[in-house]
Amino acid sequence: MSKDKDTSKLWGGRFNEPTDSFVQRYTASVTFDQRMAAEDIAGSRAHASMLASVGVLTQAELEQILDGLDQVAAEIEAGEFNWSIELEDVHMNIEARLTELIGITGKKLHTGRSRNDQVATDIRLYLRSAIDRIAEELTRLQRGTIGLAADNTATIMPGFTHLQTAQPVSFGHHLLAWNEMLERDHGRLMDCRTRMNQSPLGAAALAGTTYPIEREHTAAALGFDKPTENSLDSVSDRDFAIEFCSFASLLMTHLSRMSEELVIWASAQFNFIELPDRFCTGSSIMPQKKNPDVPELVRGKVGRVNGHLISLLTLMKSQPLAYNKDNQEDKEPLFDTVDTVLDSLRAFADMVPAIKPRVENMREAARSGFSTATDLADYLVGLGLPFRDAHEVVGTAVAHGVETGLDLAEMELATLQGFCADIREDVFDVLTLEGSIGARDHLGGTAPNQVAAAAGRALALVESR
Amino acid sequence: MSKDKDTSKLWGGRFNEPTDSFVQRYTASVTFDQRMAAEDIAGSRAHASMLASVGVLTQAELEQILDGLDQVAAEIEAGEFNWSIELEDVHMNIEARLTELIGITGKKLHTGRSRNDQVATDIRLYLRSAIDRIAEELTRLQRGTIGLAADNTATIMPGFTHLQTAQPVSFGHHLLAWNEMLERDHGRLMDCRTRMNQSPLGAAALAGTTYPIEREHTAAALGFDKPTENSLDSVSDRDFAIEFCSFASLLMTHLSRMSEELVIWASAQFNFIELPDRFCTGSSIMPQKKNPDVPELVRGKVGRVNGHLISLLTLMKSQPLAYNKDNQEDKEPLFDTVDTVLDSLRAFADMVPAIKPRVENMREAARSGFSTATDLADYLVGLGLPFRDAHEVVGTAVAHGVETGLDLAEMELATLQGFCADIREDVFDVLTLEGSIGARDHLGGTAPNQVAAAAGRALALVESR
Amino acid sequence: MSKDKDTSKLWGGRFNEPTDSFVQRYTASVTFDQRMAAEDIAGSRAHASMLASVGVLTQAELEQILDGLDQVAAEIEAGEFNWSIELEDVHMNIEARLTELIGITGKKLHTGRSRNDQVATDIRLYLRSAIDRIAEELTRLQRGTIGLAADNTATIMPGFTHLQTAQPVSFGHHLLAWNEMLERDHGRLMDCRTRMNQSPLGAAALAGTTYPIEREHTAAALGFDKPTENSLDSVSDRDFAIEFCSFASLLMTHLSRMSEELVIWASAQFNFIELPDRFCTGSSIMPQKKNPDVPELVRGKVGRVNGHLISLLTLMKSQPLAYNKDNQEDKEPLFDTVDTVLDSLRAFADMVPAIKPRVENMREAARSGFSTATDLADYLVGLGLPFRDAHEVVGTAVAHGVETGLDLAEMELATLQGFCADIREDVFDVLTLEGSIGARDHLGGTAPNQVAAAAGRALALVESR
Amino acid sequence: MSKDKDTSKLWGGRFNEPTDSFVQRYTASVTFDQRMAAEDIAGSRAHASMLASVGVLTQAELEQILDGLDQVAAEIEAGEFNWSIELEDVHMNIEARLTELIGITGKKLHTGRSRNDQVATDIRLYLRSAIDRIAEELTRLQRGTIGLAADNTATIMPGFTHLQTAQPVSFGHHLLAWNEMLERDHGRLMDCRTRMNQSPLGAAALAGTTYPIEREHTAAALGFDKPTENSLDSVSDRDFAIEFCSFASLLMTHLSRMSEELVIWASAQFNFIELPDRFCTGSSIMPQKKNPDVPELVRGKVGRVNGHLISLLTLMKSQPLAYNKDNQEDKEPLFDTVDTVLDSLRAFADMVPAIKPRVENMREAARSGFSTATDLADYLVGLGLPFRDAHEVVGTAVAHGVETGLDLAEMELATLQGFCADIREDVFDVLTLEGSIGARDHLGGTAPNQVAAAAGRALALVESR
Repeated sequence: MSKDKDTSKLWGGRFNEPTDSFVQRYTASVTFDQRMAAEDIAGSRAHASMLASVGVLTQAELEQILDGLDQVAAEIEAGEFNWSIELEDVHMNIEARLTELIGITGKKLHTGRSRNDQVATDIRLYLRSAIDRIAEELTRLQRGTIGLAADNTATIMPGFTHLQTAQPVSFGHHLLAWNEMLERDHGRLMDCRTRMNQSPLGAAALAGTTYPIEREHTAAALGFDKPTENSLDSVSDRDFAIEFCSFASLLMTHLSRMSEELVIWASAQFNFIELPDRFCTGSSIMPQKKNPDVPELVRGKVGRVNGHLISLLTLMKSQPLAYNKDNQEDKEPLFDTVDTVLDSLRAFADMVPAIKPRVENMREAARSGFSTATDLADYLVGLGLPFRDAHEVVGTAVAHGVETGLDLAEMELATLQGFCADIREDVFDVLTLEGSIGARDHLGGTAPNQVAAAAGRALALVESR
Repeated sequence: MSKDKDTSKLWGGRFNEPTDSFVQRYTASVTFDQRMAAEDIAGSRAHASMLASVGVLTQAELEQILDGLDQVAAEIEAGEFNWSIELEDVHMNIEARLTELIGITGKKLHTGRSRNDQVATDIRLYLRSAIDRIAEELTRLQRGTIGLAADNTATIMPGFTHLQTAQPVSFGHHLLAWNEMLERDHGRLMDCRTRMNQSPLGAAALAGTTYPIEREHTAAALGFDKPTENSLDSVSDRDFAIEFCSFASLLMTHLSRMSEELVIWASAQFNFIELPDRFCTGSSIMPQKKNPDVPELVRGKVGRVNGHLISLLTLMKSQPLAYNKDNQEDKEPLFDTVDTVLDSLRAFADMVPAIKPRVENMREAARSGFSTATDLADYLVGLGLPFRDAHEVVGTAVAHGVETGLDLAEMELATLQGFCADIREDVFDVLTLEGSIGARDHLGGTAPNQVAAAAGRALALVESR
Repeated sequence: MSKDKDTSKLWGGRFNEPTDSFVQRYTASVTFDQRMAAEDIAGSRAHASMLASVGVLTQAELEQILDGLDQVAAEIEAGEFNWSIELEDVHMNIEARLTELIGITGKKLHTGRSRNDQVATDIRLYLRSAIDRIAEELTRLQRGTIGLAADNTATIMPGFTHLQTAQPVSFGHHLLAWNEMLERDHGRLMDCRTRMNQSPLGAAALAGTTYPIEREHTAAALGFDKPTENSLDSVSDRDFAIEFCSFASLLMTHLSRMSEELVIWASAQFNFIELPDRFCTGSSIMPQKKNPDVPELVRGKVGRVNGHLISLLTLMKSQPLAYNKDNQEDKEPLFDTVDTVLDSLRAFADMVPAIKPRVENMREAARSGFSTATDLADYLVGLGLPFRDAHEVVGTAVAHGVETGLDLAEMELATLQGFCADIREDVFDVLTLEGSIGARDHLGGTAPNQVAAAAGRALALVESR
Repeated sequence: MSKDKDTSKLWGGRFNEPTDSFVQRYTASVTFDQRMAAEDIAGSRAHASMLASVGVLTQAELEQILDGLDQVAAEIEAGEFNWSIELEDVHMNIEARLTELIGITGKKLHTGRSRNDQVATDIRLYLRSAIDRIAEELTRLQRGTIGLAADNTATIMPGFTHLQTAQPVSFGHHLLAWNEMLERDHGRLMDCRTRMNQSPLGAAALAGTTYPIEREHTAAALGFDKPTENSLDSVSDRDFAIEFCSFASLLMTHLSRMSEELVIWASAQFNFIELPDRFCTGSSIMPQKKNPDVPELVRGKVGRVNGHLISLLTLMKSQPLAYNKDNQEDKEPLFDTVDTVLDSLRAFADMVPAIKPRVENMREAARSGFSTATDLADYLVGLGLPFRDAHEVVGTAVAHGVETGLDLAEMELATLQGFCADIREDVFDVLTLEGSIGARDHLGGTAPNQVAAAAGRALALVESR
C-alpha cells in the first residue's frame, strides 16, 4: 500500500493499514447514494453561504466554493463525473472533486459539519421532493377515478361481500370507495411531509459543533420549516423513511385491492370491464391471451414495498445512539420504494380513466343472484315483521329460488305470498335494480344522486389542495 | 341437527345443514371480540336512539331497548354473561340476550344496520379509547424523560457513534434525543386518531340502507367528527388498524433502542447506570445476577408489534371489496398491539425517572477515548489549517496516543507541538470535557445551557396539549 | 414487603427490594408457558432419573420426586393447579408445588440444571409433538386432495394464467398441483423435526454444570436423537422456532392460494364448485348469502403466520449470547402458529374431499375462451410453419373470433383456411377439449392417463411414510 | 405505431394497439433478468438437443441453433449484446438475436416450451449455482471460526446472560456456539438445494405440450435430479425462492448476533478484541475514530434480507394458479438476497480469523462480577445443602460483596463462614476461573478439553462434506 492512497481517505491519519479492497467495495455507498448528488450540492451551497454569513468563510472563499459546486453539478448532470468507490460516498466524491477544482478552499467546506448531518440533510431533501412528485401522481389518479365515477353514477353492478353477490350498487359508488382509500393515503403522505421537513444540518457528528453556525439560516435556505431540536437525534433518526414506507405499504395495499378487482373483472367469467390493449400483454405460446399485466404487476409490487418497510424497521431495531454504519442500509429500500410508488401510480393514473365498463354484463350479474333479497326483507319489515323474522322468510324464499332457478323478481306473486301472505303486487317495485339502489338514499349510500354528490365533494377536495 | 338449533342462527333460512361444529369454533370470533362489548352496546344505543328519532322505532320501543341494553351491560360487567360460540360474535351474543330479555322488540334493533358496519363502528370506538390511554402513558413517559434530562444537563458522558467514543455529550442531551423520538410518536398517534374518527355506522352491509337513517345523528352521539363518505369503503376499510400498528412499530422501535442502551449501560463493563431492583430479576442458578429484565423484554416486544403490522398488511393485500371474512383476523393483532404498547409504555414511564446515572463512571469514560479529538481539530482550524488537514494532524496525534497510552489532554505541550508547531498552552482549555461540550452552544447542540433550554421547550410542548 | 414474600422468589438473596407488582405481571410468562406443563414434567422426570443414576440423588429421593411429579401432573390435568404469577413461569410453579408436596427433596431437583436449559428442552418437546400432529393433518389433507383428483382425472376445466383462460386442463391435474405444494411442505416439516430433535438439557445456565451429569441419558429418555453440541448455543438458540414458522408461512401461503381459488370458483360468475353448507355461513342482513367462510378465513390467517415469523426474526436480530429475557417472547408466536396451522389444516382436510365440482360449468368455461388456440398453433407447426409464425396466424384468427363471437372450433373450415391455406378438416380433432388435454401426454402433463398415474404415485408416496 | 413494431412482439397477432411505452418499461424484466442469460442459454441448449433426439428438430437445425447460441453467449460475455426493453425479457432478447443470426430455424427453438417453464428453469439453475457458491463461503467461515476456537480453548472470558456476567467460559467455547448456528444454516441450505433440484422444463405454458418431449432428457442434461411432477405447479411454484430466503434470513440473523457481539467487544468499555484496521473505517470529522464498519453493516443487512423474505411471501399470498405476472417480482429480491449473503459471508470469512482477543481484558472481566457464584452454590450443595438453599446463601454473600466491593474469591474465609459455617479452605479452589471452567467437563460444557474435542468434531464434520 502506498501512503498516497491511504491519505486519499478523509480519515486515514489514525490507521496503520489501508482498507481491504473487498471491504472498501462492501462498505461503499457511492453506487447508490450518488442519486442524492443534487441534494448534496444544494446542502453544501446552503452550508457555505451560512459559513460566510457568520464569518467562517470569506466572501471570496464562498464564491470559489459556489462556482466549484456549479462545475461539479454540471459534470454530474452531463454524466461526466468520475465516481470513485475509494471515496466511499457521494459526499466525499463531490468534496474531493471540488478540492481538485478550486484547491485548498474546497477543504474548508466541511467546517462545522459532518457526513452524519450531511447525509441526514440530503436524504430529507431527496424524500421531500419525491413526496411532492408522488402527491402529484396520486392526485392525478384520484381525478381519473372520480371522473370515471361521475360518468357511472347510475351504472349498476353487483356489490359483493365474500365475492358473493350481496346487493346492487352503483359502479360509480364502487369507484368512489377506491377514492376514499386514496384520499386517506394523501393525508398520510402530507402528514409525513410536515413531520420530516426539519433541518438536521448543524448536528455535525452527533453533538453539534464549536463553530458559530446559524442553523435557522441553512434551514430556511433549504426550504425546511425549522431546524431539528436535538443533535443526537438528528443523526440517528430514520423515522421519516419508515413513516414514508408505512404510507407506501398502505397505498400499495390499496392498489393491490383495486388490481385484484380489475383482474377478476377482466376474467372471461366476470367480463365486467375491458382494459385497453396498451395496458395488456400477450403470451409467447397462447395466441389468444390478453393478460392484464399492469394490475397484476402492481398487485405483486405490494410485496416489494412491505418488504422494504420490514427492512427498515428491522434495521433500526435495537440500535444504540447515535449514528451506526447500519444506517447506510436505509437508502436502497427508500429509493426503491419511491420508484415503485411513482411508477405504480403513474400506471394506474394512465389506466383507470381508460377502463371501459361492460355495462350490460354488470347489470345482468346484478339482476341474478338474489341481490335484492335485502330489499324484500326491508319490504316485509314495512309490513310489520321484525327484521329477524323477515330475514328468515326471505331466506326460505331464496332457498326455493335456488331450487327452482328463479330469482325473486321472477317468482309469481302467489309464490311469494306462500312465504308471507301479506305481500302485495307493489313488492316488484322494490325488487328492481333501480328501486334497490335508489332507495339507499343517504350520505354514503349508493343511490345515484348520493353518488353524484359524493363525486362532487371528492373532486372539490382534491382540487382544493 | 334440530330445526331449533338451526334457526338460532341469524342467517339460517337459506341453509340445508347446520354448520360443522369444528367450523363453528374455527370461524367464531366471540372469544376475542367480546372485548368490544362496551363499544358494541354504545353503538346500539346510538343506533336505537337515531331509529326512534326518525320514527322507525317508537319511543316505547327505544326505552325497552335501552333498558335491555343496560341489563346486558350489567351482566357483562359482572362477569355473568353467558358467551356462546354458536352465536358467533359479540354482536349476535348481545342481541340474542337482549331479545331474551325484552322480547320481539329486541329483534328490531338490527333494522337499518348490518354486522359489517356494526363491527367497523365497534372497533373504531375501541381503538379511539385505546389511543387516548396510550397518549396518556406516552405523555407520562415524556415527562419523566424530560425531568431526568433537566436534572442532568451538565452530567457528562461519552457520546457514541459506532459504539465507539465520539465526543463528550451531556447525559441530559442524550435523554432529550429519546424525547424527540417520543414526540414524533405522539404526533403520529394524534394524526391516526384524527383520520380514524369518522363514523361508519349506516353503511349497513355494504351499500347503505333503505331506512331513513340519519348518519350525522349517530356519528355525533358516538363522538365521531363526522360520518364516513362511502358505504363500501366503510365496511372494507382497515386502514386505521394498519396506521395504528405502523405508529406502534415505530414507537416500539424507539423503545427498543432505549432498551438496548439501558442494557449496555447496565453491563459491568459500561456501568453507567443503576436500575432499581424492582425493575430487575435474578437467576434461579446464578445467585449474583441482577438482570435488566424490563428493558430486555421491551426490546423483545418490538418483534411482536412488527409482526402484527405485517399480519395486517398481508391480510388486506389483494382483498376485493367489500367485506370478506378474512377481515375478522384484524382484531387479535390490533388488541395485542394495544396491550403491548400500553404495558411497555407503563413499564418505561415507571422506570425511566428511577434510573440513577453513575456520574463518575460516565465522566471517566468520556475523559478517555480521545473524545476531544474533534475539538483539537477545530482548534487547529482556528490557527488557519483547512479542516481536512487539521483532521490528518489530529489523526497522527491519536495514533501516537494509542501507542503510548496517553489521551490528548495528557500529552506534553511539546509533544503536541511535534504534530503542529503552532499549538499553544491554551489548547488544554479546549481539551477539557466542560470546554468541549460548552463550546457546542447552538440550537440542538450539547452545551448545558442549550440542553436546559431544550428541556424547557420540550416540557412546554408536552404540557400544552 | 414482607421478607417471606421476597424469599419466595428463587433468586431473591441478592435483592434489596421486591419486584414491582406491575413488573411482576409484565415479565411473568406463566399465563402462556403453562401450556408446556406436561413437557416440563417429562423433562424433570428424565433429569431426576439421570441424577439418581449418577448418584446425585438417592433412589429414595428419586421415587419421592417422581411420585410428587405424578401428583402435580394430576392436579394440572384436573384443572386444580393453582398457577401463580409471583412464581413467574411454569418451571417455578411446578417446582414450588413439588416442594410443598414432598418437602426439601423437591429443592434438589434443580441440581445441575437451570431454567435456561429447562425451557429450551420443554419447548423442543412441545414443538416436536406439535409437528407430529401437524404431519398427521397434513397427510390427511393430502389424501383427500389426491382422492378428489383421482375421481376427476377426466373432468375438464379451463387452465388459467393471469386469470385468463389459457388451455383446457384436467381438474384432477389442478388438484395434484395443490398436492405438490403440500408434499414439499411435508418435506420441510420433517427436515425441521430432524434438525431440532436434539437435547439441550445439561447446558445449565449457559456453560454446563459441575455435576457429573450424563446428557446422553436424558436425551435418550426424552426421545431426542442426541444431545446438542454446545451449551452456550443450547440456551440461546431459537432456530427451531423460526424454521418451524418458515415452514408454516409457506404452508399457509399455499392454503391461501387454494382458498383464493375456492372463493373465486364459488362465485356466481365462475360457479365451478359447490361447497357444502356446513363449511359456509350466512349474512345477518342479506338472506340469500352463502359465504365461503372457511377458505376466506384460512386465506386471512396467512397474515397471522407471516407476522409471527417476522416477530421471531426481529426478536433474535442482534441479540448477543447467551440467554436474554427477550427470548421469552418466542413462545406466544410459536404457540399461535401451531394452533393456526393445526386448525387450518383440519378445516381443509375436512372440506376438500367434500368439494363438488360443477362439471358442466367447468367444461363450458373451457370450451369458450379460445382455450385450444395453442393446439391450433401446434397443428400449424405440424404443417411446417415455424412456431412463431404459427402463433401469429392463430393470433389473427383469435382477433377474428373476438370480433365475430365465434370460438375457433365454431369457425368454418374455409374461414380457418383464410388464415392458413394448408389447414384441413382434421384440424377440428385438435380443437376439441378431449383432443387438447389428451395430447399433453408426458410426465407432468394434463392428459388423463398421466394424471391418473400421477395420482397413483402421489398416493403411494403419502402412504409410504 | 407501425405494424412492424407491433409484430416484433412475440404475441402481437391478437392486439389492436401497441403497448404503451411507459407500460413497456414498467412491465419489462430484461433490466434484471439478463443476469440469468447463461442459464437461459444452457436451458435452450438442453431443450434443443432433446427436440433433436425426439425428431422435432433435424440434426442440422440443432447444430445451427447450438452454433447460434454460442455466438449469442459470446456477445453477452463480451458485453456487446444489445439488450432491448421492447423484447421484454432475457428469453425473448436471446431468441430474437438467435433468429437474427441463424434465420428461421431460430424460431423453432421455442417449440414445445413456453416462457413460463423457461423462466422457472432458468431461475432454478441460477439459484442452484448461487447455493453452491454460498456453501463454499459458509464453509470457509466455519473453518475460520473453528480454527480461532481451537486456538482459544483455554482463553477465559465472562459468559453473559442478559449482558450481565454469568459464569466464566472459554472464548473457544463461545466461538463454537457461533459454529453451531452456521452448521444448522448449512443443513438448511442443503435441504433447500435438494428440494429445488428438479426440472420444470416441459411444463410449457401450464399444461404440458403436444410435442413428444422427453423431460428426463433435459432434466439430466441440466443436472437436475428429476423432472417435476406437475405442469401447473411447475410454472406457479416459487417455494424454492422463499425457502432460500428463509435460510438467508436465519443465516443473516446469526451474523447479526455475531456482529452485535463484535461491536460490543470492540467498544472501549469492553475492549475484548481488536479488529484489524483493514476491516474498519474512520470518521471525516473525529480523527480518533476506528469504527467496526464491517460487523455493523452486516448487522444492518439482516433487515434487507428479512424484507425480501416478506416481499416474496406477500407476493405469493392468494395467487390463483397457474402463472401470473406478479411472479415476475420474484427475481430482484432473490438476486439481492444472493448478493447480500455472499458478500456478508465473504466479509466474515475474511475477518473472523483475523480477530485478536485481548486475553488479559477478557480474563480480568471474568475475574470480577461474581462469576463463580454458581460454583460456590454447587460447593455448598456438596456440603449437603439443597440447591435452592445454597442459592439463597450465595445471594446473601453476593449482596455483601456488592456492598464491600469484594469479589467472592477476595473475601476472608471467616467472612464466607459467616454465611455458611461449613465452608472450608478448599472453597477457594472452586472459586478460581480455571477451576470453574474446568469443572464443567461434559459433552457441550466449557471445560477446555471438552472445547478442544468439540472443535475437532466440528472440523471433521465440515471437512467430511
